[in-house]
Amino acid sequence: MTMIKQLAPQDEFVGFYLLRELTVKQTNGNPPKDYFDMVLGDSSGQLSAKFWDVSTADKETFFPMGLVKVRGLAHTYREKLQIKVSKMRLVNETDGVALTDFIRSAPIRPVDLVHTIKNVMASIKDPEIATIVAFCVDKVEEKLMHYPAAKTHHHAYFAGLAYHIVRMLEIGDFLCKQRPFLNPDLLKAGILLHDIAKPEEMISQLGIVSDYSVQGKLIGHISMASNWITEAAIRSNIALDSEKVLGLQHLVLSHHNLGEWGSPVQPQTAEAVALHHIDAMDAKLQMVEDALDTTPETDEWTPFIRGLENKAVYRLKI
Amino acid sequence: MTMIKQLAPQDEFVGFYLLRELTVKQTNGNPPKDYFDMVLGDSSGQLSAKFWDVSTADKETFFPMGLVKVRGLAHTYREKLQIKVSKMRLVNETDGVALTDFIRSAPIRPVDLVHTIKNVMASIKDPEIATIVAFCVDKVEEKLMHYPAAKTHHHAYFAGLAYHIVRMLEIGDFLCKQRPFLNPDLLKAGILLHDIAKPEEMISQLGIVSDYSVQGKLIGHISMASNWITEAAIRSNIALDSEKVLGLQHLVLSHHNLGEWGSPVQPQTAEAVALHHIDAMDAKLQMVEDALDTTPETDEWTPFIRGLENKAVYRLKI
Amino acid sequence: MTMIKQLAPQDEFVGFYLLRELTVKQTNGNPPKDYFDMVLGDSSGQLSAKFWDVSTADKETFFPMGLVKVRGLAHTYREKLQIKVSKMRLVNETDGVALTDFIRSAPIRPVDLVHTIKNVMASIKDPEIATIVAFCVDKVEEKLMHYPAAKTHHHAYFAGLAYHIVRMLEIGDFLCKQRPFLNPDLLKAGILLHDIAKPEEMISQLGIVSDYSVQGKLIGHISMASNWITEAAIRSNIALDSEKVLGLQHLVLSHHNLGEWGSPVQPQTAEAVALHHIDAMDAKLQMVEDALDTTPETDEWTPFIRGLENKAVYRLKI
Amino acid sequence: MTMIKQLAPQDEFVGFYLLRELTVKQTNGNPPKDYFDMVLGDSSGQLSAKFWDVSTADKETFFPMGLVKVRGLAHTYREKLQIKVSKMRLVNETDGVALTDFIRSAPIRPVDLVHTIKNVMASIKDPEIATIVAFCVDKVEEKLMHYPAAKTHHHAYFAGLAYHIVRMLEIGDFLCKQRPFLNPDLLKAGILLHDIAKPEEMISQLGIVSDYSVQGKLIGHISMASNWITEAAIRSNIALDSEKVLGLQHLVLSHHNLGEWGSPVQPQTAEAVALHHIDAMDAKLQMVEDALDTTPETDEWTPFIRGLENKAVYRLKI
Amino acid sequence: MTMIKQLAPQDEFVGFYLLRELTVKQTNGNPPKDYFDMVLGDSSGQLSAKFWDVSTADKETFFPMGLVKVRGLAHTYREKLQIKVSKMRLVNETDGVALTDFIRSAPIRPVDLVHTIKNVMASIKDPEIATIVAFCVDKVEEKLMHYPAAKTHHHAYFAGLAYHIVRMLEIGDFLCKQRPFLNPDLLKAGILLHDIAKPEEMISQLGIVSDYSVQGKLIGHISMASNWITEAAIRSNIALDSEKVLGLQHLVLSHHNLGEWGSPVQPQTAEAVALHHIDAMDAKLQMVEDALDTTPETDEWTPFIRGLENKAVYRLKI
Amino acid sequence: MTMIKQLAPQDEFVGFYLLRELTVKQTNGNPPKDYFDMVLGDSSGQLSAKFWDVSTADKETFFPMGLVKVRGLAHTYREKLQIKVSKMRLVNETDGVALTDFIRSAPIRPVDLVHTIKNVMASIKDPEIATIVAFCVDKVEEKLMHYPAAKTHHHAYFAGLAYHIVRMLEIGDFLCKQRPFLNPDLLKAGILLHDIAKPEEMISQLGIVSDYSVQGKLIGHISMASNWITEAAIRSNIALDSEKVLGLQHLVLSHHNLGEWGSPVQPQTAEAVALHHIDAMDAKLQMVEDALDTTPETDEWTPFIRGLENKAVYRLKI
Repeated sequence: MTMIKQLAPQDEFVGFYLLRELTVKQTNGNPPKDYFDMVLGDSSGQLSAKFWDVSTADKETFFPMGLVKVRGLAHTYREKLQIKVSKMRLVNETDGVALTDFIRSAPIRPVDLVHTIKNVMASIKDPEIATIVAFCVDKVEEKLMHYPAAKTHHHAYFAGLAYHIVRMLEIGDFLCKQRPFLNPDLLKAGILLHDIAKPEEMISQLGIVSDYSVQGKLIGHISMASNWITEAAIRSNIALDSEKVLGLQHLVLSHHNLGEWGSPVQPQTAEAVALHHIDAMDAKLQMVEDALDTTPETDEWTPFIRGLENKAVYRLKI
Repeated sequence: MTMIKQLAPQDEFVGFYLLRELTVKQTNGNPPKDYFDMVLGDSSGQLSAKFWDVSTADKETFFPMGLVKVRGLAHTYREKLQIKVSKMRLVNETDGVALTDFIRSAPIRPVDLVHTIKNVMASIKDPEIATIVAFCVDKVEEKLMHYPAAKTHHHAYFAGLAYHIVRMLEIGDFLCKQRPFLNPDLLKAGILLHDIAKPEEMISQLGIVSDYSVQGKLIGHISMASNWITEAAIRSNIALDSEKVLGLQHLVLSHHNLGEWGSPVQPQTAEAVALHHIDAMDAKLQMVEDALDTTPETDEWTPFIRGLENKAVYRLKI
Repeated sequence: MTMIKQLAPQDEFVGFYLLRELTVKQTNGNPPKDYFDMVLGDSSGQLSAKFWDVSTADKETFFPMGLVKVRGLAHTYREKLQIKVSKMRLVNETDGVALTDFIRSAPIRPVDLVHTIKNVMASIKDPEIATIVAFCVDKVEEKLMHYPAAKTHHHAYFAGLAYHIVRMLEIGDFLCKQRPFLNPDLLKAGILLHDIAKPEEMISQLGIVSDYSVQGKLIGHISMASNWITEAAIRSNIALDSEKVLGLQHLVLSHHNLGEWGSPVQPQTAEAVALHHIDAMDAKLQMVEDALDTTPETDEWTPFIRGLENKAVYRLKI
Repeated sequence: MTMIKQLAPQDEFVGFYLLRELTVKQTNGNPPKDYFDMVLGDSSGQLSAKFWDVSTADKETFFPMGLVKVRGLAHTYREKLQIKVSKMRLVNETDGVALTDFIRSAPIRPVDLVHTIKNVMASIKDPEIATIVAFCVDKVEEKLMHYPAAKTHHHAYFAGLAYHIVRMLEIGDFLCKQRPFLNPDLLKAGILLHDIAKPEEMISQLGIVSDYSVQGKLIGHISMASNWITEAAIRSNIALDSEKVLGLQHLVLSHHNLGEWGSPVQPQTAEAVALHHIDAMDAKLQMVEDALDTTPETDEWTPFIRGLENKAVYRLKI
Repeated sequence: MTMIKQLAPQDEFVGFYLLRELTVKQTNGNPPKDYFDMVLGDSSGQLSAKFWDVSTADKETFFPMGLVKVRGLAHTYREKLQIKVSKMRLVNETDGVALTDFIRSAPIRPVDLVHTIKNVMASIKDPEIATIVAFCVDKVEEKLMHYPAAKTHHHAYFAGLAYHIVRMLEIGDFLCKQRPFLNPDLLKAGILLHDIAKPEEMISQLGIVSDYSVQGKLIGHISMASNWITEAAIRSNIALDSEKVLGLQHLVLSHHNLGEWGSPVQPQTAEAVALHHIDAMDAKLQMVEDALDTTPETDEWTPFIRGLENKAVYRLKI
Repeated sequence: MTMIKQLAPQDEFVGFYLLRELTVKQTNGNPPKDYFDMVLGDSSGQLSAKFWDVSTADKETFFPMGLVKVRGLAHTYREKLQIKVSKMRLVNETDGVALTDFIRSAPIRPVDLVHTIKNVMASIKDPEIATIVAFCVDKVEEKLMHYPAAKTHHHAYFAGLAYHIVRMLEIGDFLCKQRPFLNPDLLKAGILLHDIAKPEEMISQLGIVSDYSVQGKLIGHISMASNWITEAAIRSNIALDSEKVLGLQHLVLSHHNLGEWGSPVQPQTAEAVALHHIDAMDAKLQMVEDALDTTPETDEWTPFIRGLENKAVYRLKI
C-alpha cells in the first residue's frame, strides 16, 4: 500500500486512508456541481484531495474521520502535491484496517506509558505529595491514554502527552542521581503535574487538537493545575499553607520560566529550575527527532520548525 | 512643630518623630565610639539622622518604630539633607501624640473605607458571586484596615489597598452606568478580588512593606487569589466548572493584562478588559496626586515616579 | 429584507445593498468573459459577490458606493460565504432607501454628538484655552459629522470620531469630580484636541477610511495638531511660550504614552496622564462592545480583536 | 602648568583651574568645621577637590564657575584621584588667563563655524526653504556660538552643536555629489534644522548643560522645531500645506528614525533617510574621536561610551 | 518593444523576455490539459504569465532562464496584472538580444567595478593587510563579477555586491579625509572584506539569489569571512595573534553592530564603528534610490521597502 | 580557625586568610596617615578589612594574593560586616597552609577532571573529529587545570571550566543513550569545544577572572573557537569544506542559541540543539547548587542570582 509520504506527481495508486477532513463544495460552472474537498491522511502524513461529481448517495455515505479505500492520482496543483480521487468507498470489516493505524502516535504504546507513569507515582515516598499527584492524575487518567502534549508545537500526536511525561521522568531520574541536592519526590511530582491540566485545556480526538476549551483560554493549563492542587489538598485534608502545597504549586506555576511565556512567577526552587530545563530539553529534542523522522531521507533539510526559532534542521552527512 | 518636609539646612528644631530605622554603629576613631544611625519620619516624609556618643542606657532605651522627641540641627551631608540630633527622649503619655499621626495614610479613614467595601459587597445580586467574594474578603478583613496596595509602586501607605479598591469601585460604578453591556456584579467582584491576596503576599506594618512573604514570592497574589476562589467554591458547594467560578478566576488572573506584567492569561471578557483599565487608571492617577501632594508647592517638578516610565510630573501654572 | 449578517449557505434572497467595491474582471475561459467582482454591504456587515456575464450596459450603469437591489444566492467558496448575483439594478427614488442606512454608524446621531461637543467647548472657562480649542475644531467641524476615529482599530464607522470624543468627555467629567486636583479646562481641551487632526490624517467617505493622506503619513495627526495649536496661538495673539500653549501641546503630543506608540514625549502633567488613560479605556471598551454587538448572539466568542492583543472576547453565560 | 589629565597620585602642583562646582559642607567632627567640596576643571578634564578649614572670608570670595589659582596635592580616595587644596585665590587680570581656556570646546572657532553655516544657508536656492531656515536659525543664532549638541551623549562641549552641524553639512555635500537623486536644498535645510531647537530644549553655560528646560521636557526639540517651521511659514506667508513645509517638517520629525528614539514618524523621503544616517554617522564617529582624544595615549582602551552600546574603544597598534 | 513595467490591462503586445520561472501544470478540467505557469521578466520588472494548451513539443522546447519572443495580452487576475501568452518561441541568434539585457543590474559595468576594487586593493600600504585582503578577494573574484549583495534586502541585482563595495569605498575615502584619526588601510580592508563571503553564503545566478548555501545557513557570511582571514594568515605566515589579524577579524565580526542583527561582537575600534555606519548608509540610500527608479514617475509613493521599517518613500514635489 | 562565612559582628578572632586585594590609602586627618584597604578571603567567602597606622615596613612586606595570619575584630560599617585588623603577618612554612586551601574550587580535583576529559576525547571514533578536538584542547590544556567557566555568571572558581565540561559530558552521554538519533562523536566534540577558547578570552588567576583579554573583547570565545577549528583543519590537512568542519563550527557558533546572547547563527543540527540545552541545564543547576552551598543553612533564601533572572532560590522545608 502506498503511504502518503511516498507519493510523487503522476503516481496512480490504491490504498486505505483516513478522511481527516471532508467538505462539500460547488464548482464555479453553470450549473454548479457538488464535489468533495478532502484531506486524506495516514500515519506518514496528509494531503489535500478532490473527489469530483459526487452523488447524493456519496454525500450521505462519507463523513470526516472515517476510513476509506481510495483509487487516485497524485498531481501538482499551485505548486503543491494534491490527490484526484477517481474511486472511493468506506472501509469494511474484511479490510482488516483499524483507525489507530492511520494516525501519528507516540513510539511507545499508551498502555505502557501509563504503566510507567503509575510506577513512578508509586515510587514517591512522601505520602502527601503522592496523594496530591494521584488526585490530579486521576482527573485525566483516561485522556492520558491518547492526548497530545500540544496543538502543533511538540508531541502533537496520539499519546504525545504521556510520552513527553515519561521521557522527562527519565531525564529527571538521571539528574537526581547526578545532583543529589535535588529532591526526587518534588521533581517527579513536578514532571507529573506540570502539564496535567492540558487534557482539559484542549479539545482533542485521536491525537489531533481541534481547539482550546473555554477553560483553557480563560484560565490556562498552568493556573488550572494550580487550582487542582488546591482542590486536592482540601479534599485530602492537607494544609493549604504547607510547604508541600507551596512547593508543588510553585513547580507548576513557574515551569514556563518567564512571564511572556505564560508563567506568573519565575522558578525559585532548585527543583523548579530543573523542571523548566527538563521540559525545554525534551520538547525541543523531540521536535528535532520528529521533524527528521517525517522528512524524506533524501532531503538535506527538514521543514521550518516553529518551536526552534522557525529554523529548519540540517542532516549532517557524518 | 516642624514637619520633616519643611526642614532646611541649618534649621535648629524640636519636635516629635517616628524612629523608622535605628542601627547602632561605631565611629572610625580610636577607640571607636557607638552612635545611632537613624531614619526619622513623620507623615510628611523622612530623613537620615545621627545621634553621636550614645550611652549604654540609650542603647537600651530606643527601638525602631518608637516615637521620640528630638532636638536637632538640619545640615547638608554628601549633597543630601541630614539631621544631627543633640537630644532625644522617648515620647510619654502626656505628650499627646499617637503612632498613626506619624505615618502616611489614605485620605479616608480605614473604617469608612471598609464600610464602603461592605456596602458594595452587599449590593452584589448574584448569591454565588457574593458568597465567593465574601469568603475571600473575610480572609484578610483585619488587614484591609491598614495594608498598603504595594511596596513602593502606588498607594504605598496605611490603608492604601482599601483606598485603591474604593476608588476603583467608584470608577466601576460610573462605567456600568455609561456602558450597560457590562455586568455590574462581575465588575464589582473583579475589583474586590483583584488584589485581595496582596495582604498575604506582602509583610507590612503601619502601611510600610518590609518584604514579600514566601507565598508572595513563590505563588504571587494573582495565583493566590485564584486558589482562594477555588477554595471558596469548594467550601460553599459551588460547581468548580461553573461560568461564575470561571469568570471570577479569569478576572483575577488577567488583570495585569500581559504575561510580562504577571498575568498568565490576557483579558478575554468585557469585564476583564474594564477591570484592567480601571486598575491602571486609578493606580497611575494616584501616583500623580500623591507625588504632587508630597512635593513642596514651590517646586515645579515632582521627583521621578517609577510607575510613570520614571518621569517627573510638572505643575502647570494655569 | 435579509441582512448580510443573517445569510447562510444556500439562502436565496432579494434585498437592497451598498456596492462597497466593484471591479470588472475577466474569466479564464476562451474567449474570456467580463464579470463583476463586488463587495456588497449593509449596516450589519459585508460579503464578496460575483455577477457573471455582465453586459456593456451593466458596465456603464453600476459604480462603487452606489445602492443596488439584488437577487442572489449565498454559497460557500474556499470556506467562506459568497454571493452569486443573478439579478441587479440601481436603487431608484421610489425604493425609499438612503445611503446612510447601509453603513455602520455611531449609536448617537452626528448632529447630537457635535452639539454635545459644542456645549463642552462653551463650558471651558479659560478664554485662551477656549480660543485655541475653537480654532482647531473649526478646521474639521464639517468632517466631525461623519469621520471615523481610525481605519480599523476602533470606532471605525460613521461619526466614530465624534462618538469617541463625547464618551471620553463623559469619563473626563466623572474623573474631574472624583479627583479635584485635575484641571477641568485642560482635560476637556486635551480630549477635544487629542485626535482633532485625524480627519486630515485620513481620507474617508461614509465612515470608511480608504487611505492615509500624505500629511498623515509624513507628519501624523499628533504633530499636525501640535502645529495647529501653534497656528491658533499666532492667529489669536496668544504668547507661544505661555504655559497654556505648552500645556495643550504637551497633552496632544503625549497622549499615545510611549515613543513606540507614536508620542515623542511621555505624559508629564496630571491631565496628560489622565488623558492617556481615558483614551485607552474608551477605545478598548468600545472595541469589546462593538465586537459583541456584531457577533451573532449564539456565538460564544467574538472574532479576534487586533487592538486587544489579538484576543477574542468570550460571552460569559452569567 | 599641570593639566588635570596629567595629574598622578602624590603630585604636588600649582595651577589655574575653573571652579566647576562649589559647595560648603561641614565635617563630622565636634564642633563641625566648614569646608569646600569642589570640582576643579580645565580643558583636559575635571577632578573632585577638598579645601579644608575655610574661613568666613573664603565663603564670600569663591563662587562656582570662577577661575582660581590653586596649590594642591593629588591623592587617591575611595579608589579615585582627588585633590587636597592647600592654597587657593581668585584669578586676577595680571594672571592672563581666560574662562574659555578652561573648558572643552569644538576644535574650530565658533565664529568660523557660524560663518560656514551662514554660507551654506546662502547657498540654498529655493527662496521659501531659505526663508524658513533663516527664521529658525535666527531664533538661536546667539546660542549657536556656544551651545553643545547634547548633555552628555555627543558633542557635549562649547560650540558642539555648531560643530556637529558643520561636519554633517560636509557629509551631506559629499552625498549629494555621489547620489544626484538627493535634493541639496532639502538636505542642507534638514541638517540645519534637525537640532535647531536644542538651544531652547537645554539650559547651558560654557558648553555645559545643567538641565533641560520645561519646554524641552514637555515638548522636546523635535516638536519644537516642527512648531517653529509652522511659525516661520505663517510669518512669511508661505502656504502651510505646501510640499516645502511638509518636506521640512518631515525631515525634522523623522530624524531620530524610530518611535522609541523620539521620532513620531519614520523617514519616508529620500532626504529624510539620508539625514538620519548622516546624523548617526557624525555623532558616533565624534564620540569615538573625542573618547580617544581625552584618553591618555598609553591607555589601550577608552572609558565606556554610553552612545556606543556602552562599549569602550580599543586603540589598535597598527 | 514593450517593457514589463509599462504594460497596462488589455494591452496586446509582442516582445522579447526572460523566462524567469517555468512550471508545467494541469487544468482542473476533465480531461486535464497541460499549461505553462510562467514568470516573464525584463530589466524593468516581472509578471506572472500563462500559456494555455501547450504541446508535447512545447514542453521539450522551453526551459527556465531561457530568452523567448512572446505575443501576449495583459489582463487583471485576482487584482494583479497577468499575461495571457498566445504565441511564444525561443530567441535565435538573428534576434540580436542578450541575456544580460533582461536582468536588473548595477548601473556601472562589472568589469569597471572590479577594476576599481583592484585599484583600492593596490593602494593599501600595509603589506600584511594587503595580503590578507587579496587572499579573501581571490576566493570569490569570479563571482564578484555578478553576485548581488543580498537576496532581496538591498543591491539585489547583477553585480550588486561589487557596486555596494565600490560605493562604500567612496564614502570611506571621504571620511578618512574628513577625519584623519581613521586608518585608511583598515577602513579599506574592512569595506572590502565585510561581505566578501556573501558569494559563498548564497546561491545565485544572473543576480538572482535562489537560496542560501548550507555553509551560509550553518556558519553565515560573517563567521565564514573570519575563518578566511585565519586561513589567509596561516597560508601567508602572518601571526594569528597579531593586531592586524585581530583588527580585520573584528571589523568583519562587528559590522552588523548588534547581536540580534548577527554580529557576535559590537564595534570597538574607530574603523569598526565607521564601517558599520558606511554599510548602513549605503544600503539604505540604495534601497531608496532603487525603489524610486523602479516606481513609475507618476506614482507619488514607492512600494513598501522592508529594509526601511517597511515604509514607502514619498516623491516630494519640490 | 574561624571561616569568613561564620564571622558575626563583634567577633574577635585569629586565623589564616588570603589577601585578595591590598591598596595603600591615606586618612583624611592632618597630617594624613597611611592605611591598608584590603579584602580578606578564604574558601568560604570574603570581607573588606582595614589595617590602620601601617608602617613603612608593612608597606614593603605585604602584597596582593599573599597568605597572612590575622588578628582582627568584625564590626558593622555602613550596614555591612567589615574587619578591623589589629595584627597581621605573612604566613611562613611552619604554618602548614597552602594557597589552594583559600580559594573556591570545583568539588573534583583538576587532575581528575582533565583525566575524564582525556578519556572522553579518546572515545571519539571519527579520527578527523578527534584530531580537531585534540588540536583545540592542546592550546589550553595547562589552563584547563585551573580556569573558571566565567567571570561571575556560573562555575566562577578554580577549575570551574573543566568541571562544567565534565558534567555536560555526563548529561550528553545520558542523552545519546536515551535518543540514539544523536551522533555521540559530534555531541562529545561540541561539549569539549563549545567553551574551549574561554581561557584565552579571559585573564584569570586562581579561579578569579580579573578582566577579559583584548582578543576576548574584540573577537569573543565563540568566534575564536571557530577560528581554531579552521586552524586545526589546515594544520591537519582536513578539508575546510567538509561536513565535519562545518558541523563542528556550527556547534560552537550556535551554542548560545540567539543573536542577542552572542551566537551569530542559531542551532540547526540535532546535536547543536542538544548542546545548547545541555549547556543551559548544567550552568543554571550549578548556579543553584553553588548558591545553596554558600548560603548559611539557617537562611531560607540565597542571595539574588543574576543568571536566574536575578531571582533568589528558596530552600523548601520538605
